[in-house]
Amino acid sequence: MATKIPRVEEREGGDIAERCKSFMSPPVTDIQVLQQRKGEMSTRMEMLIMETQAEFCKALEEVDGGKFRVDRWQRKEGGGGISCVMQDGKVFEKAGVNVSVVYGNLTEEAARQMRSRGKVLKGKDGKLPFRAMGVSSVIHPKNPHIPTVHFNYRYFEIEEADGTKQWWFGGGTDLTPIYINLEDGSHFHNVLKEACDKHNPQYYPDFKKWCDRYFYIRHRGETRGIGGIFFDDLDSPSQEEVFSFVKSCAKTVVPCYLPIVRKHLNDSFSPEEKDWQQVRRGRYVEFNLVYDRGVKFGLATPGSRVESILMSLPLTARWEYMHEPAKGSKESEMLEVLRSPREWV
Amino acid sequence: MATKIPRVEEREGGDIAERCKSFMSPPVTDIQVLQQRKGEMSTRMEMLIMETQAEFCKALEEVDGGKFRVDRWQRKEGGGGISCVMQDGKVFEKAGVNVSVVYGNLTEEAARQMRSRGKVLKGKDGKLPFRAMGVSSVIHPKNPHIPTVHFNYRYFEIEEADGTKQWWFGGGTDLTPIYINLEDGSHFHNVLKEACDKHNPQYYPDFKKWCDRYFYIRHRGETRGIGGIFFDDLDSPSQEEVFSFVKSCAKTVVPCYLPIVRKHLNDSFSPEEKDWQQVRRGRYVEFNLVYDRGVKFGLATPGSRVESILMSLPLTARWEYMHEPAKGSKESEMLEVLRSPREWV
Repeated sequence: MATKIPRVEEREGGDIAERCKSFMSPPVTDIQVLQQRKGEMSTRMEMLIMETQAEFCKALEEVDGGKFRVDRWQRKEGGGGISCVMQDGKVFEKAGVNVSVVYGNLTEEAARQMRSRGKVLKGKDGKLPFRAMGVSSVIHPKNPHIPTVHFNYRYFEIEEADGTKQWWFGGGTDLTPIYINLEDGSHFHNVLKEACDKHNPQYYPDFKKWCDRYFYIRHRGETRGIGGIFFDDLDSPSQEEVFSFVKSCAKTVVPCYLPIVRKHLNDSFSPEEKDWQQVRRGRYVEFNLVYDRGVKFGLATPGSRVESILMSLPLTARWEYMHEPAKGSKESEMLEVLRSPREWV
Repeated sequence: MATKIPRVEEREGGDIAERCKSFMSPPVTDIQVLQQRKGEMSTRMEMLIMETQAEFCKALEEVDGGKFRVDRWQRKEGGGGISCVMQDGKVFEKAGVNVSVVYGNLTEEAARQMRSRGKVLKGKDGKLPFRAMGVSSVIHPKNPHIPTVHFNYRYFEIEEADGTKQWWFGGGTDLTPIYINLEDGSHFHNVLKEACDKHNPQYYPDFKKWCDRYFYIRHRGETRGIGGIFFDDLDSPSQEEVFSFVKSCAKTVVPCYLPIVRKHLNDSFSPEEKDWQQVRRGRYVEFNLVYDRGVKFGLATPGSRVESILMSLPLTARWEYMHEPAKGSKESEMLEVLRSPREWV
């Protein structure tokens, strides 16, 4: 059977310059450079993260009625990014969608730390040229019946002294509701599972567990939310197949989240429900500042853009001493799930 | 000249059982045990931290009109504490004053980490019996014209395999105003300098610098507040002299802070000033969760009481993307001082 293998630009939706027109801002890398290197993974991934940013921002703008502020920034050491932030909108208290494409040289130690498996990499005179890119987003809505969502998809490549290119992908999407809604949780996890199942039946169960483990606030004995998927260091079976998986995941961001937002858009809420949201926001801050690897790495890296790293923090948060919801309340029901993660599909 | 050397109970104000009556709660250690060991440094320090807690709490209650909630807690591994918290009072948004007295065994590695100079300590079978105690407090007022204050005074002793007792004191008091007030800053630093000068003319200049260095939010390029004093690992010239210095410092807590509170009690403020306070509260959270050694050590220590560690976090905080005060505003004047610490005396 003569199956026609589509060319790259067909597979990924046409001409580069044309595709760039839909972005929130021109890509970080010059369009001409991208066109010259259109078959390379770094180009294909940069196009994917720019597209994901645009799709998600536009879907959020539509539902909110507000507009994202778009900031382009450059990194002195190489590369830069595009930060889109909407603050104090009608629906969203704070919504941030950030793309970054950075490159330069890493020390062997820094390179080792970047891989969760801590693989040893040999650099030329101890230096390793690298290229890293990703899209990441955190959305904090105003209404406590609309959950917070976070996602991040990233690609990393590094060149060893002998010219070998090491590469890997990482990412995930996870949901942080303020109140448990079984239908929402099951919708969210099912959309992710479907995307995973197209590629490998082990992906969803493995990456769901990884997510619960990663987003764990150890000192509270609670997860940050109801999870989703999380993976890192993915470099098999092939670059093409992993990219295809990451693309499937990136394409789920809107269908995972927007139906939940629309459903609860007009839910009424009490001041007590708003308070509980603010307490949960405090826990979100605790996770992000104490445990999140990306935040810790970012804050410790000279030349990183702090405002883009910390745009994940909510507009407002609250810490009440000895806060403990009443037994049998909706708040304590939420806590139970955070204390022992459940299955959603 | 026949100078009468006062007995310990005279020097430190009388009978132990009698002194305990003024405390927020009976001391952590049984009163009878304290009486038996009344000459020991651990007893004298426990009495001092209990007294400091009581004096400060009562002064705050008087000005606020509210009452502290008093929680006694026990540490499974040895010792416990007394946490006093007032939340959502008339004057104070959140006020916490905590005493802890803990003991047990440390690993050599943990013991080494506890000393900022990283001294090597030899334990019996790798274990070192230790006793640690301290009083610490953070007060977040509602009115943005009343600054936040923090203080902590602590004592540590550890027994090496050969029976040698290592001991040291640490502590400090520092102020975090939302708006610069030259008179307040100078009052605060002068009271501390006076206490320091009675013991060593180098203490104030050295510990002022240490304070600015310690309370530095590196990723923001800002100090947390306008400083005060900070010291650690203090073990000379003699135990008696260092204790006497720590006592002088502890006695300044009320005169450092209360006059400033009273002065601004009825200052009016705008919603914009309240917002700026909330942004600064966000920075306070960043410092405490990302850099503070006590918080990091506490959260990583099994069996520690998380609610007492995190009572230092404000009731409410705010993170605005790309917040930058207008040039020449009172807010930017505050930022300038945080970006380049000044002299106050």
